[in-house]
Amino acid sequence: MGKKVAVVLAGCGVYDGSEIHESSAVLVHLSREGAQVEVYAPNVDQMHVVDHVRGQPTQEKRNVLVESARIARGNIKDLAKLDVKGLDALIIPGGFGVAKNLSTWATQGKNCTVSKEVEDVLKAFHAAKKPIGLCCISPVLAAKIFPGCELTVGHDTECEKWPYAKTAETMKELGCKHVNKHVTEIHVDAKNKLVTTSAFMCNAPIHEIYDGIGKMVKEVVRLA
Amino acid sequence: MGKKVAVVLAGCGVYDGSEIHESSAVLVHLSREGAQVEVYAPNVDQMHVVDHVRGQPTQEKRNVLVESARIARGNIKDLAKLDVKGLDALIIPGGFGVAKNLSTWATQGKNCTVSKEVEDVLKAFHAAKKPIGLCCISPVLAAKIFPGCELTVGHDTECEKWPYAKTAETMKELGCKHVNKHVTEIHVDAKNKLVTTSAFMCNAPIHEIYDGIGKMVKEVVRLA
Repeated sequence: MGKKVAVVLAGCGVYDGSEIHESSAVLVHLSREGAQVEVYAPNVDQMHVVDHVRGQPTQEKRNVLVESARIARGNIKDLAKLDVKGLDALIIPGGFGVAKNLSTWATQGKNCTVSKEVEDVLKAFHAAKKPIGLCCISPVLAAKIFPGCELTVGHDTECEKWPYAKTAETMKELGCKHVNKHVTEIHVDAKNKLVTTSAFMCNAPIHEIYDGIGKMVKEVVRLA
Repeated sequence: MGKKVAVVLAGCGVYDGSEIHESSAVLVHLSREGAQVEVYAPNVDQMHVVDHVRGQPTQEKRNVLVESARIARGNIKDLAKLDVKGLDALIIPGGFGVAKNLSTWATQGKNCTVSKEVEDVLKAFHAAKKPIGLCCISPVLAAKIFPGCELTVGHDTECEKWPYAKTAETMKELGCKHVNKHVTEIHVDAKNKLVTTSAFMCNAPIHEIYDGIGKMVKEVVRLA
Protein backbone atom coordinates (compact mmCIF):
# COMPACT_ATOMS: atom_id res chain seq x y z
CA MET A 1 0.00 0.00 0.00
CA GLY A 2 1.21 3.49 -0.86
CA LYS A 3 1.78 6.22 1.69
CA LYS A 4 -1.26 8.28 2.66
CA VAL A 5 -0.58 11.94 2.00
CA ALA A 6 -2.78 14.92 2.91
CA VAL A 7 -2.65 17.86 0.49
CA VAL A 8 -4.03 21.12 1.91
CA LEU A 9 -5.36 23.68 -0.58
CA ALA A 10 -6.22 27.37 -0.15
CA GLY A 11 -8.53 28.09 -3.08
CA CYS A 12 -8.03 27.91 -6.85
CA GLY A 13 -5.85 30.47 -8.61
CA VAL A 14 -2.46 32.06 -7.96
CA TYR A 15 -3.69 35.51 -6.81
CA ASP A 16 -6.34 34.49 -4.26
CA GLY A 17 -5.98 30.73 -3.82
CA SER A 18 -3.63 27.79 -4.33
CA GLU A 19 -1.31 28.10 -7.32
CA ILE A 20 -2.94 25.75 -9.84
CA HIS A 21 0.19 24.34 -11.50
CA GLU A 22 1.98 23.74 -8.19
CA SER A 23 -1.11 21.93 -6.89
CA SER A 24 -1.41 19.85 -10.04
CA ALA A 25 2.30 19.00 -10.00
CA VAL A 26 1.98 17.82 -6.38
CA LEU A 27 -0.92 15.53 -7.34
CA VAL A 28 0.78 14.15 -10.48
CA HIS A 29 4.01 13.35 -8.63
CA LEU A 30 2.17 11.80 -5.66
CA SER A 31 0.26 9.61 -8.13
CA ARG A 32 3.50 8.51 -9.77
CA GLU A 33 4.94 7.64 -6.34
CA GLY A 34 1.92 5.41 -5.71
CA ALA A 35 0.69 7.55 -2.81
CA GLN A 36 -2.94 7.64 -1.71
CA VAL A 37 -3.98 11.28 -1.65
CA GLU A 38 -6.56 13.03 0.49
CA VAL A 39 -7.19 16.66 -0.42
CA TYR A 40 -8.35 19.09 2.28
CA ALA A 41 -9.20 22.79 2.51
CA PRO A 42 -10.62 25.04 5.21
CA ASN A 43 -14.37 25.73 4.99
CA VAL A 44 -13.99 29.53 5.25
CA ASP A 45 -14.53 32.57 3.04
CA GLN A 46 -11.58 33.67 0.91
CA MET A 47 -9.93 36.91 2.07
CA HIS A 48 -11.12 38.26 -1.28
CA VAL A 49 -11.63 37.28 -4.91
CA VAL A 50 -9.15 38.54 -7.52
CA ASP A 51 -10.05 39.01 -11.18
CA HIS A 52 -7.04 37.22 -12.69
CA VAL A 53 -7.23 39.19 -15.96
CA ARG A 54 -7.08 42.62 -14.31
CA GLY A 55 -5.15 41.54 -11.19
CA GLN A 56 -7.67 43.47 -9.06
CA PRO A 57 -10.04 42.40 -6.27
CA THR A 58 -13.75 42.17 -7.11
CA GLN A 59 -16.87 42.40 -4.91
CA GLU A 60 -17.52 38.65 -5.11
CA LYS A 61 -17.42 36.22 -2.21
CA ARG A 62 -16.08 32.69 -2.61
CA ASN A 63 -15.45 29.82 -0.20
CA VAL A 64 -11.96 28.28 0.07
CA LEU A 65 -13.23 24.67 0.28
CA VAL A 66 -15.65 25.08 -2.65
CA GLU A 67 -13.04 26.69 -4.91
CA SER A 68 -10.30 24.21 -3.90
CA ALA A 69 -12.70 21.45 -5.01
CA ARG A 70 -12.07 22.60 -8.59
CA ILE A 71 -8.46 21.39 -8.28
CA ALA A 72 -9.55 18.27 -6.35
CA ARG A 73 -12.19 17.39 -8.99
CA GLY A 74 -14.79 17.31 -6.17
CA ASN A 75 -12.86 14.79 -4.08
CA ILE A 76 -12.10 17.01 -1.08
CA LYS A 77 -12.68 17.16 2.69
CA ASP A 78 -13.09 19.91 5.25
CA LEU A 79 -9.70 20.61 6.87
CA ALA A 80 -11.46 20.53 10.26
CA LYS A 81 -11.89 16.75 9.75
CA LEU A 82 -8.21 15.99 9.09
CA ASP A 83 -6.93 13.33 11.51
CA VAL A 84 -3.16 12.97 11.46
CA LYS A 85 -3.40 9.40 12.81
CA GLY A 86 -4.47 7.92 9.47
CA LEU A 87 -1.98 9.93 7.42
CA ASP A 88 1.75 9.61 6.67
CA ALA A 89 2.67 13.07 5.36
CA LEU A 90 1.41 16.56 4.61
CA ILE A 91 1.99 18.79 1.57
CA ILE A 92 0.85 22.42 1.15
CA PRO A 93 1.31 23.96 -2.33
CA GLY A 94 1.90 27.71 -2.70
CA GLY A 95 -0.06 30.60 -4.19
CA PHE A 96 -1.29 33.82 -2.58
CA GLY A 97 -4.12 31.83 -0.95
CA VAL A 98 -1.55 30.56 1.56
CA ALA A 99 -0.78 34.17 2.49
CA LYS A 100 -4.44 35.28 2.38
CA ASN A 101 -6.65 32.36 3.42
CA LEU A 102 -4.36 30.14 5.54
CA SER A 103 -2.52 33.03 7.22
CA THR A 104 -2.39 36.83 7.20
CA TRP A 105 1.09 36.94 5.61
CA ALA A 106 -0.16 38.97 2.58
CA THR A 107 -1.15 41.90 4.79
CA GLN A 108 1.06 41.49 7.90
CA GLY A 109 4.26 39.82 6.70
CA LYS A 110 6.40 38.42 9.52
CA ASN A 111 3.87 39.68 12.10
CA CYS A 112 1.14 37.53 10.56
CA THR A 113 -0.96 34.90 12.27
CA VAL A 114 -1.50 31.42 10.87
CA SER A 115 -5.12 30.24 11.00
CA LYS A 116 -5.65 27.97 14.03
CA GLU A 117 -6.83 25.01 11.93
CA VAL A 118 -3.73 25.17 9.73
CA GLU A 119 -1.40 25.65 12.72
CA ASP A 120 -2.95 22.66 14.52
CA VAL A 121 -2.49 20.47 11.44
CA LEU A 122 1.15 21.50 10.94
CA LYS A 123 1.93 20.94 14.63
CA ALA A 124 0.22 17.54 14.62
CA PHE A 125 2.33 16.22 11.71
CA HIS A 126 5.47 17.73 13.24
CA ALA A 127 4.79 16.22 16.68
CA ALA A 128 4.18 12.81 15.07
CA LYS A 129 7.51 13.13 13.22
CA LYS A 130 5.69 12.82 9.89
CA PRO A 131 7.19 14.75 6.95
CA ILE A 132 5.85 18.07 5.69
CA GLY A 133 6.40 19.33 2.13
CA LEU A 134 6.02 23.04 1.35
CA CYS A 135 6.68 25.10 -1.77
CA CYS A 136 6.68 28.68 -3.05
CA ILE A 137 5.29 30.91 -0.27
CA SER A 138 3.98 28.10 1.96
CA PRO A 139 7.32 27.67 3.83
CA VAL A 140 6.44 30.92 5.65
CA LEU A 141 3.90 28.85 7.61
CA ALA A 142 6.73 26.69 8.93
CA ALA A 143 8.85 29.77 9.66
CA LYS A 144 6.10 31.09 11.92
CA ILE A 145 5.25 27.81 13.64
CA PHE A 146 8.63 26.03 13.90
CA PRO A 147 11.10 28.74 14.96
CA GLY A 148 14.66 27.98 13.91
CA CYS A 149 13.71 25.53 11.17
CA GLU A 150 15.70 25.31 7.93
CA LEU A 151 13.99 26.07 4.63
CA THR A 152 14.27 27.58 1.16
CA VAL A 153 12.06 30.05 -0.64
CA GLY A 154 14.64 30.32 -3.42
CA HIS A 155 17.29 33.04 -3.42
CA ASP A 156 17.90 36.00 -1.13
CA THR A 157 19.13 38.46 -3.78
CA GLU A 158 16.45 40.20 -5.80
CA CYS A 159 16.71 40.10 -9.59
CA GLU A 160 14.46 39.39 -12.56
CA LYS A 161 14.62 35.68 -11.80
CA TRP A 162 13.93 36.09 -8.06
CA PRO A 163 11.37 38.91 -7.75
CA TYR A 164 10.32 37.88 -4.22
CA ALA A 165 13.85 37.50 -2.78
CA LYS A 166 12.96 39.72 0.20
CA THR A 167 10.95 36.82 1.57
CA ALA A 168 14.22 34.96 2.18
CA GLU A 169 15.49 37.88 4.28
CA THR A 170 12.27 37.81 6.29
CA MET A 171 12.77 34.09 6.94
CA LYS A 172 16.11 34.96 8.55
CA GLU A 173 14.50 37.75 10.60
CA LEU A 174 12.08 35.11 11.92
CA GLY A 175 15.07 33.09 13.14
CA CYS A 176 15.09 30.45 10.40
CA LYS A 177 18.09 29.21 8.47
CA HIS A 178 17.35 30.14 4.86
CA VAL A 179 19.24 28.09 2.27
CA ASN A 180 19.55 29.45 -1.30
CA LYS A 181 18.40 26.82 -3.81
CA HIS A 182 17.72 26.75 -7.52
CA VAL A 183 14.12 26.19 -8.63
CA THR A 184 14.79 22.54 -9.49
CA GLU A 185 16.39 21.88 -6.09
CA ILE A 186 14.94 21.21 -2.64
CA HIS A 187 16.13 21.78 0.89
CA VAL A 188 15.62 19.07 3.51
CA ASP A 189 15.52 19.98 7.20
CA ALA A 190 16.12 16.45 8.48
CA LYS A 191 15.51 17.31 12.13
CA ASN A 192 12.09 18.80 11.43
CA LYS A 193 11.33 16.47 8.47
CA LEU A 194 10.60 19.57 6.46
CA VAL A 195 11.09 19.57 2.65
CA THR A 196 10.91 22.88 0.77
CA THR A 197 11.31 24.11 -2.82
CA SER A 198 10.90 27.57 -4.33
CA ALA A 199 8.48 26.83 -7.21
CA PHE A 200 6.90 30.07 -8.54
CA MET A 201 8.99 32.21 -6.18
CA CYS A 202 11.31 31.82 -9.18
CA ASN A 203 10.53 33.40 -12.53
CA ALA A 204 11.30 30.13 -14.32
CA PRO A 205 9.74 28.03 -17.09
CA ILE A 206 6.82 26.01 -15.75
CA HIS A 207 8.48 22.63 -16.40
CA GLU A 208 11.33 23.58 -14.03
CA ILE A 209 8.77 24.35 -11.33
CA TYR A 210 7.14 20.98 -12.05
CA ASP A 211 10.52 19.26 -11.69
CA GLY A 212 11.41 21.00 -8.41
CA ILE A 213 8.07 20.00 -6.93
CA GLY A 214 8.71 16.46 -8.15
CA LYS A 215 11.88 16.30 -6.06
CA MET A 216 10.02 17.69 -3.04
CA VAL A 217 7.23 15.12 -3.37
CA LYS A 218 9.66 12.21 -3.84
CA GLU A 219 11.58 13.19 -0.70
CA VAL A 220 8.40 13.64 1.36
CA VAL A 221 7.21 10.17 0.34
CA ARG A 222 10.66 8.70 1.05
CA LEU A 223 10.68 10.23 4.55
CA ALA A 224 7.13 9.01 5.29
CA MET B 1 13.09 29.86 -31.65
CA GLY B 2 10.43 27.49 -30.31
CA LYS B 3 7.12 26.86 -32.00
CA LYS B 4 4.31 29.28 -31.15
CA VAL B 5 1.35 27.36 -29.80
CA ALA B 6 -2.12 28.70 -28.93
CA VAL B 7 -3.88 26.99 -26.01
CA VAL B 8 -7.62 27.66 -25.84
CA LEU B 9 -9.28 27.39 -22.42
CA ALA B 10 -12.96 27.18 -21.47
CA GLY B 11 -12.98 28.24 -17.80
CA CYS B 12 -11.33 26.78 -14.71
CA GLY B 13 -12.59 23.52 -13.22
CA VAL B 14 -13.64 20.14 -14.60
CA TYR B 15 -17.43 20.52 -14.20
CA ASP B 16 -17.95 23.96 -15.77
CA GLY B 17 -14.60 24.91 -17.33
CA SER B 18 -11.31 23.51 -18.59
CA GLU B 19 -10.04 20.48 -16.70
CA ILE B 20 -7.29 21.96 -14.54
CA HIS B 21 -4.80 19.08 -14.61
CA GLU B 22 -5.15 18.56 -18.36
CA SER B 23 -4.56 22.30 -18.90
CA SER B 24 -1.56 22.31 -16.57
CA ALA B 25 -0.09 19.20 -18.23
CA VAL B 26 -0.41 20.87 -21.65
CA LEU B 27 1.48 23.95 -20.38
CA VAL B 28 4.20 21.93 -18.61
CA HIS B 29 4.86 19.76 -21.66
CA LEU B 30 4.82 22.75 -24.05
CA SER B 31 7.36 24.46 -21.77
CA ARG B 32 9.60 21.39 -21.83
CA GLU B 33 9.39 21.29 -25.65
CA GLY B 34 10.61 24.90 -25.72
CA ALA B 35 7.36 26.19 -27.23
CA GLN B 36 6.19 29.77 -26.86
CA VAL B 37 2.65 29.61 -25.50
CA GLU B 38 -0.23 32.04 -25.94
CA VAL B 39 -3.30 31.25 -23.87
CA TYR B 40 -6.73 32.33 -25.16
CA ALA B 41 -10.34 32.03 -24.00
CA PRO B 42 -13.66 33.40 -25.24
CA ASN B 43 -14.91 36.54 -23.47
CA VAL B 44 -18.40 35.11 -22.78
CA ASP B 45 -20.45 34.05 -19.77
CA GLN B 46 -20.08 30.45 -18.66
CA MET B 47 -23.17 28.25 -19.38
CA HIS B 48 -23.40 28.01 -15.58
CA VAL B 49 -21.24 27.75 -12.45
CA VAL B 50 -20.97 24.37 -10.71
CA ASP B 51 -20.21 24.01 -6.99
CA HIS B 52 -17.45 21.39 -7.28
CA VAL B 53 -18.08 20.05 -3.75
CA ARG B 54 -21.76 19.31 -4.31
CA GLY B 55 -21.57 18.78 -8.08
CA GLN B 56 -24.60 21.08 -8.50
CA PRO B 57 -25.11 24.36 -10.38
CA THR B 58 -25.28 27.56 -8.34
CA GLN B 59 -26.90 30.95 -9.08
CA GLU B 60 -23.52 32.62 -9.71
CA LYS B 61 -22.39 34.09 -13.02
CA ARG B 62 -18.76 33.85 -14.15
CA ASN B 63 -16.92 34.82 -17.34
CA VAL B 64 -14.95 32.19 -19.28
CA LEU B 65 -11.99 34.50 -20.02
CA VAL B 66 -11.75 35.75 -16.42
CA GLU B 67 -11.88 32.24 -14.91
CA SER B 68 -9.48 30.81 -17.52
CA ALA B 69 -7.02 33.51 -16.44
CA ARG B 70 -6.62 31.57 -13.15
CA ILE B 71 -4.96 28.75 -15.11
CA ALA B 72 -3.03 31.23 -17.29
CA ARG B 73 -1.75 33.17 -14.23
CA GLY B 74 -3.23 36.33 -15.79
CA ASN B 75 -1.34 35.95 -19.07
CA ILE B 76 -4.32 35.42 -21.39
CA LYS B 77 -5.95 36.96 -24.46
CA ASP B 78 -9.47 37.22 -25.81
CA LEU B 79 -10.06 34.38 -28.30
CA ALA B 80 -11.58 36.97 -30.67
CA LYS B 81 -8.05 38.35 -31.12
CA LEU B 82 -6.41 35.06 -32.12
CA ASP B 83 -4.64 35.37 -35.48
CA VAL B 84 -3.58 32.04 -36.95
CA LYS B 85 -0.86 33.76 -39.06
CA GLY B 86 1.51 34.21 -36.13
CA LEU B 87 0.91 30.75 -34.65
CA ASP B 88 2.20 27.26 -35.46
CA ALA B 89 -0.29 24.99 -33.66
CA LEU B 90 -3.45 24.87 -31.54
CA ILE B 91 -4.23 22.80 -28.42
CA ILE B 92 -7.59 22.62 -26.62
CA PRO B 93 -7.61 20.74 -23.26
CA GLY B 94 -10.78 18.97 -22.08
CA GLY B 95 -13.23 19.47 -19.23
CA PHE B 96 -17.00 20.04 -19.31
CA GLY B 97 -16.31 23.68 -20.26
CA VAL B 98 -15.59 22.45 -23.80
CA ALA B 99 -19.08 20.91 -23.88
CA LYS B 100 -20.75 23.85 -22.13
CA ASN B 101 -18.89 27.05 -23.05
CA LEU B 102 -17.22 26.24 -26.40
CA SER B 103 -20.11 24.16 -27.75
CA THR B 104 -23.53 22.88 -26.71
CA TRP B 105 -22.39 19.23 -26.55
CA ALA B 106 -23.34 18.90 -22.84
CA THR B 107 -27.02 19.52 -23.60
CA GLN B 108 -27.38 18.52 -27.28
CA GLY B 109 -24.79 15.79 -27.89
CA LYS B 110 -24.19 15.05 -31.56
CA ASN B 111 -26.77 17.70 -32.55
CA CYS B 112 -24.75 20.39 -30.78
CA THR B 113 -23.40 23.58 -32.27
CA VAL B 114 -19.80 24.75 -31.81
CA SER B 115 -19.47 28.44 -30.93
CA LYS B 116 -18.65 30.48 -34.05
CA GLU B 117 -15.39 31.85 -32.59
CA VAL B 118 -14.13 28.35 -31.76
CA GLU B 119 -15.24 26.95 -35.12
CA ASP B 120 -13.47 29.76 -36.98
CA VAL B 121 -10.25 29.15 -35.06
CA LEU B 122 -10.30 25.38 -35.65
CA LYS B 123 -11.02 25.86 -39.36
CA ALA B 124 -8.24 28.46 -39.68
CA PHE B 125 -5.56 26.13 -38.26
CA HIS B 126 -6.91 23.23 -40.35
CA ALA B 127 -6.94 25.30 -43.56
CA ALA B 128 -3.36 26.44 -42.88
CA LYS B 129 -2.33 22.77 -42.38
CA LYS B 130 -1.17 23.59 -38.84
CA PRO B 131 -1.54 20.81 -36.26
CA ILE B 132 -4.36 20.67 -33.71
CA GLY B 133 -4.09 18.78 -30.40
CA LEU B 134 -7.25 17.78 -28.51
CA CYS B 135 -7.85 15.67 -25.43
CA CYS B 136 -10.62 14.24 -23.27
CA ILE B 137 -13.95 15.59 -24.62
CA SER B 138 -12.46 18.27 -26.88
CA PRO B 139 -12.11 15.89 -29.89
CA VAL B 140 -15.92 16.20 -30.27
CA LEU B 141 -15.24 19.70 -31.64
CA ALA B 142 -13.22 18.15 -34.47
CA ALA B 143 -15.88 15.50 -35.02
CA LYS B 144 -18.46 18.23 -35.65
CA ILE B 145 -16.25 20.49 -37.78
CA PHE B 146 -14.09 18.03 -39.76
CA PRO B 147 -16.48 15.25 -40.84
CA GLY B 148 -14.73 11.95 -41.45
CA CYS B 149 -11.67 12.78 -39.35
CA GLU B 150 -9.89 10.13 -37.27
CA LEU B 151 -9.69 10.51 -33.51
CA THR B 152 -9.73 8.84 -30.13
CA VAL B 153 -11.75 9.59 -27.01
CA GLY B 154 -10.46 6.38 -25.41
CA HIS B 155 -12.43 3.13 -25.63
CA ASP B 156 -15.86 2.32 -27.07
CA THR B 157 -16.88 -0.29 -24.47
CA GLU B 158 -18.23 1.06 -21.19
CA CYS B 159 -16.69 -0.24 -17.97
CA GLU B 160 -15.39 1.20 -14.71
CA LYS B 161 -12.26 2.39 -16.48
CA TRP B 162 -14.14 3.96 -19.42
CA PRO B 163 -17.32 5.50 -17.96
CA TYR B 164 -17.88 7.78 -20.99
CA ALA B 165 -17.39 5.10 -23.67
CA LYS B 166 -20.68 6.05 -25.38
CA THR B 167 -18.92 9.17 -26.66
CA ALA B 168 -16.83 6.93 -28.93
CA GLU B 169 -20.02 5.47 -30.42
CA THR B 170 -21.31 8.99 -31.04
CA MET B 171 -18.07 9.85 -32.84
CA LYS B 172 -18.83 6.99 -35.27
CA GLU B 173 -22.43 8.19 -35.71
CA LEU B 174 -20.98 11.58 -36.74
CA GLY B 175 -19.01 9.81 -39.49
CA CYS B 176 -15.59 9.81 -37.81
CA LYS B 177 -13.19 6.92 -37.55
CA HIS B 178 -12.83 6.30 -33.81
CA VAL B 179 -9.65 4.46 -32.79
CA ASN B 180 -9.52 2.76 -29.36
CA LYS B 181 -6.44 3.90 -27.45
CA HIS B 182 -5.11 3.50 -23.93
CA VAL B 183 -4.89 6.65 -21.77
CA THR B 184 -1.12 6.90 -22.29
CA GLU B 185 -1.47 6.61 -26.07
CA ILE B 186 -2.41 9.11 -28.79
CA HIS B 187 -4.00 8.84 -32.21
CA VAL B 188 -2.61 10.85 -35.10
CA ASP B 189 -4.81 11.71 -38.07
CA ALA B 190 -1.95 12.61 -40.42
CA LYS B 191 -4.20 13.93 -43.20
CA ASN B 192 -5.95 16.39 -40.89
CA LYS B 193 -2.88 16.98 -38.64
CA LEU B 194 -5.12 16.11 -35.71
CA VAL B 195 -3.60 14.60 -32.53
CA THR B 196 -5.95 13.22 -29.86
CA THR B 197 -5.66 11.45 -26.48
CA SER B 198 -8.34 10.36 -24.01
CA ALA B 199 -7.05 11.98 -20.76
CA PHE B 200 -9.83 12.05 -18.10
CA MET B 201 -12.25 10.16 -20.36
CA CYS B 202 -10.34 7.32 -18.67
CA ASN B 203 -10.70 6.62 -14.99
CA ALA B 204 -6.91 6.42 -14.59
CA PRO B 205 -4.27 7.70 -12.15
CA ILE B 206 -3.50 11.34 -12.85
CA HIS B 207 0.14 10.68 -13.82
CA GLU B 208 -1.03 8.46 -16.69
CA ILE B 209 -3.24 11.32 -17.93
CA TYR B 210 -0.21 13.62 -17.65
CA ASP B 211 1.88 11.17 -19.70
CA GLY B 212 -0.76 10.76 -22.44
CA ILE B 213 -1.04 14.51 -22.79
CA GLY B 214 2.76 14.66 -22.94
CA LYS B 215 2.75 12.40 -26.01
CA MET B 216 0.01 14.53 -27.60
CA VAL B 217 1.94 17.77 -27.01
CA LYS B 218 5.22 16.32 -28.32
CA GLU B 219 3.53 15.15 -31.53
CA VAL B 220 1.76 18.48 -32.05
CA VAL B 221 5.06 20.34 -31.70
CA ARG B 222 6.79 17.84 -34.00
CA LEU B 223 4.12 18.35 -36.69
CA ALA B 224 4.27 22.16 -36.36
